[in-house]
Formats: sequence, structure tokens, C-alpha cells
Amino acid sequence: MASYWSRYPLLGEQLDGVRALIERKLHIRNKSIEQAVVALNSAGGKYLRPAFFFLFEAFGDAARLDKEQLVTAAASLEVLHLATLVHDDVIDDSPLRRGQVTVQSRFGKDVAVYTGDLLFTIFFELLLESMPGSPYMNVNAKTMKKILLGELDQMSAYYRQDQTVRAYLRAAAGKTAALFKLASREGAYFGGADPETIRLAGHIGFYIGMAFQMIDDLLDYTEDSEMLNKPVLEDIGQGIYNLPLICALQKNPVAFRPYLDKKQAMTAADVQVVVALMKKESGLEEARQLATRFTQKAVAAIQQLPAHPSKAILLEITERLLKRSC
Amino acid sequence: MASYWSRYPLLGEQLDGVRALIERKLHIRNKSIEQAVVALNSAGGKYLRPAFFFLFEAFGDAARLDKEQLVTAAASLEVLHLATLVHDDVIDDSPLRRGQVTVQSRFGKDVAVYTGDLLFTIFFELLLESMPGSPYMNVNAKTMKKILLGELDQMSAYYRQDQTVRAYLRAAAGKTAALFKLASREGAYFGGADPETIRLAGHIGFYIGMAFQMIDDLLDYTEDSEMLNKPVLEDIGQGIYNLPLICALQKNPVAFRPYLDKKQAMTAADVQVVVALMKKESGLEEARQLATRFTQKAVAAIQQLPAHPSKAILLEITERLLKRSC
Repeated sequence: MASYWSRYPLLGEQLDGVRALIERKLHIRNKSIEQAVVALNSAGGKYLRPAFFFLFEAFGDAARLDKEQLVTAAASLEVLHLATLVHDDVIDDSPLRRGQVTVQSRFGKDVAVYTGDLLFTIFFELLLESMPGSPYMNVNAKTMKKILLGELDQMSAYYRQDQTVRAYLRAAAGKTAALFKLASREGAYFGGADPETIRLAGHIGFYIGMAFQMIDDLLDYTEDSEMLNKPVLEDIGQGIYNLPLICALQKNPVAFRPYLDKKQAMTAADVQVVVALMKKESGLEEARQLATRFTQKAVAAIQQLPAHPSKAILLEITERLLKRSC
Repeated sequence: MASYWSRYPLLGEQLDGVRALIERKLHIRNKSIEQAVVALNSAGGKYLRPAFFFLFEAFGDAARLDKEQLVTAAASLEVLHLATLVHDDVIDDSPLRRGQVTVQSRFGKDVAVYTGDLLFTIFFELLLESMPGSPYMNVNAKTMKKILLGELDQMSAYYRQDQTVRAYLRAAAGKTAALFKLASREGAYFGGADPETIRLAGHIGFYIGMAFQMIDDLLDYTEDSEMLNKPVLEDIGQGIYNLPLICALQKNPVAFRPYLDKKQAMTAADVQVVVALMKKESGLEEARQLATRFTQKAVAAIQQLPAHPSKAILLEITERLLKRSC
């Protein structure tokens, strides 16, 4: 994490504060689980959500702020993210996450389910510590619900060859963009920014979150699994079709059918054929175009923000996220 | 549910209100999951936690209360309970719960994980609707944490033949008694009861919750799986040793070792031997004694409550829970 933010020392310092707070919160009597979650927390996560929180928080009146309250609110965002990661790993059966053995492959699915639940309660605690009685408690509850409905949307699309880009966008809006939106809005709000900046922050966070999810999908195809630290491509056999494949499927469903119809029985060779077909039908280009469109929306909205050093940082980060390779 | 509370028409009516509210809250865009959760909600659950809420709420000043707020708070308790049930079923791999196919066996573990998470968010929503800014938000967060730490305690004891009754009590205090305690205290608090009654309510809820968990453990041995609607005894092969077995193990660990050491490889015959040994070492009697001790504590505390019709109902219910066969 430190290296990712090395160009922005103030932000790096704020995020170190967030990480230290989360580590304190993760102290529980079951030491082996504590160890696994602490490892996940400190292993390579970029702390993007707290970072957006602080970048937008900066648009407000810094003098009047309670720093500890801000760190606590920022930490709540990352803990909510960690909770969903732990449960995602249960579902994907992932052996690795951020180069670390996942909670579920180390301790079993059972422990991972409760560990994720425990992280949800720590999220809840951090909210109560940072914003008791605030209307943002409700915004947080609604966001958590959107995330889970997004995950359930994605699941109900498993193996569906007729799924649309529109349905994909709806699921991505929930499972990824909702939390970036919350982080950005909440930062602007607790920073004391004006209502127009808060509104813009929400839009920017949303667009960045959408682009982020699309790039994630593209990286499944363009990078090898070692760089991504997670098994790629096997998603297809598990019925999880991501954006490039959905784009290609919409154009030529008949070509894919003989392979995708095999579902779990797809061989590695079948998957390779599907990937080749996806490329032939310009799935990657279309997905990248869509990601670029959302990035452009984010950039346009960032440019509407009031003059502030955070503005340049936001533009740099947005560009870097679009070009990232992991 | 209706029949369980038929002797207490006012309470039955209040619980019907809770059930209707929960059903409304369960409307989500994924209809098949909605259906599964609605089925779980309406299938045979006794709504014990909301019932205790209302029984203690009655000790306050009924005239000044917002009925809808009370129903919402009572519903939050049941939804938290439902969330933990759905995740428990993932972990136990249970095919049935309350005679209904579980979410996980109908839709897979994946969906069940997110469905449980979604129920946690509905719990959170209900709290925000019923008690925004109240100190009971914190009490709820702490209780949720206790429940999960209790579940994790239980898991870290899997296959441990040296586990103590004390460790069992700690896990039971978290995973079961904490929520009964919350329901009772919260009812008294929002009913506007005096501080001493609120304190007593917490104690009573806790004792009843402990006794309830112990009886649950006893029922695993004394009833057949058809009556219990869940597979029993197989827990032993999965390393989950419940109270009667723990009591017996403490007395004569050597006798059990050759069988329990086989862990997952235990045959049905091995399990039968273990059960016979447990009975020989008076495991059932000791567990029942412990359950009786906690019930007596509950009864003694109930008797300290101010005079009120709820007092007699609490005594009846406590007795009925101890004698229950399912």
C-alpha cells in the first residue's frame, strides 16, 4: 500500500492511520482468525475506498474537523470491503487473495462465513463510533444492501447466455460502484464540503467504481493468474460471465452455445475456444470502450469540482486505475 | 407460531405484526431468494426473541409508546436471528430447517452466504428505523459481535476432546444467550420500565437463553431427527461435541478416545458407541442438571420482577421451554 500512495505523502499517512485503527479493531480472542484477517488487511490492499474518502474530505473546511472521527469513518469503508472480500472468497473458492492464503482455504468455509460476519459487525461498530445519529448511518445501511443485492444479481445470472450488458451494469453498480460512491460522498460530507461538491463526489465515485469493475473484468483475460493472485478463466466454467464475454455473447450467441452449454463440464480447451471467440467478436474492445466511457464521465465530473490540490490527484488516480495491470 | 402463543392472544397479535413487517422487509428483486427467506420466516419459528421483547416491554408505561417503533425493534431481533440461522445452515450443511428446505440446499452455499448478509443489512435497517441515535444501537452492535465470537469459539473447539463445560458456557453465552438477553433488556428499555426491571430483564433473558441452548443440546439425543427437522448425531462425526457429550468426556476421556479420534472417519456404529458411553457416564443427567440450574436462576429473577400479568406468562413460558420436545 505504502508504495502505491508514495507520491501523495499526506494521503499515505492518513491511510496508515486507517490501517492501524483496523488492526486494533481486529483483536479478537480467537488468535488464529485474528491473524488471518490482520494478514488480509495488511497485504497489498490499496485502501482505495478510504483514499477516495480523504481525497473528497479535503474539499471541506479542514480546520473544524475531528481527525479521529474521519479516520474511523474511512476505516468503516475498508472493513465493509474486507467483509465482502472474505465472503466472496467463500463463494469463489479462491485459494489466494492478495497473494495470501484466504481465510476459507486456511480455516475452512465455515470459519470464513463467520469471519465475514464478524467484519460486518466491526463495520457497524465503526459507524456507531464515527457517525452516531447521522443521516449517513442510513446511507451506509442502504449501500450495504445495494452491495448484497448486486452480488445476488450476479449470482442469478450464472450460466445465463442471454444476460445483457444492462443487467451487468446493474450488478456492477451494486457490488462495486455503490461503495466507491459512498466513500466519495461520505468523505465530502464529513469534510464539510458544500452540497454541490457532495453531489459531484457521489457521481465521481460511482463512475470510477463502474470503470474499476470493468477493468477488473478485462484483467481476467489480459493478465496471467500469477499477476492477478487469483485463478482466472475458471470463472467461465463456473458460469460467471464477465463483461468482455457478455459483450461478445450479445453479438453472436449461437457461436458460443455449444461450448457454454457444457457448463461445469467445460474442459480447458473449451474455455480457450470461448476466449478466442470472445476476442474475435471484439469483446475486449467493447468492454474497454465501456470502461473508457465511464472513466470519461468521472473525469468530466472531477473537472467540475472547485479548485483544489485534490483535483489533480483524483485525475491522476483515475487514469492510473484505468491503466492498471493488477 | 399462532398455535404456540394461542394462550396469549395479545402477544400472538403483536407477533403477527412482527411477522408481517418482516415479510414486507424481505421484498427484494430476486424473487426466488425472497421466496426462500419468506418461507423460512413463516415456517414454524416461535418468534421467541420478539416474544420476550414484548413480555418485558409490558412492564413499562404502555400509554406513551409508539407501537410501530416497538414492532420494528422486535422485528430486528428476529431478523438478526434469521441471519444467523441461514449462515448456520451453510456451516452445518443442513438440508432442512423448520421442515423447509434450507436456502443453501435449495440455491447453494453461495446464495445462502449473501442471503444471510442481506438479512444482516435488514437487521441494520430495522435498527435505524426503530432506534436511531439510541444507546441501544451500540448494545445491538455489541450483541451481534458476541454472537459471532460465540460461533467462532464453538468452531475452534471442533474435535477437541479436552473442551471444558466452562468453554461450552462461554460459547453458549455468545451464540444463544446474548440475543435472548438483548431481546429482554431492549423490550424493558423501550417499554419505559424502571432501571431495576431493565437490569433484571437482561439477567432473565440471559439465563433463559443458556437453558434454551442446553435443552437444544439434550434434544439432539433424546429425539429422532424427524421431530427435530434436522439431522442429529452426525454432529459428532463433524467434531461438534455438545453439552451431554462434553460432560461425559470430562469424566472419562479415555473411554471415548478410540472412537472420537477417528474424527470424520467415524462410522454410524462408532457414533452409537459414543452415545451409549455418554449415557453411561451420565452425560444427559449432568446436562439436564445444568439446564435446570439456569432455569431456576431465571425463575428466581422473574419472581423479583414487579407485579404484572407478564410475570405469570414468563414463568409459564420458561417452564414450557424447559420441557419442550422440539
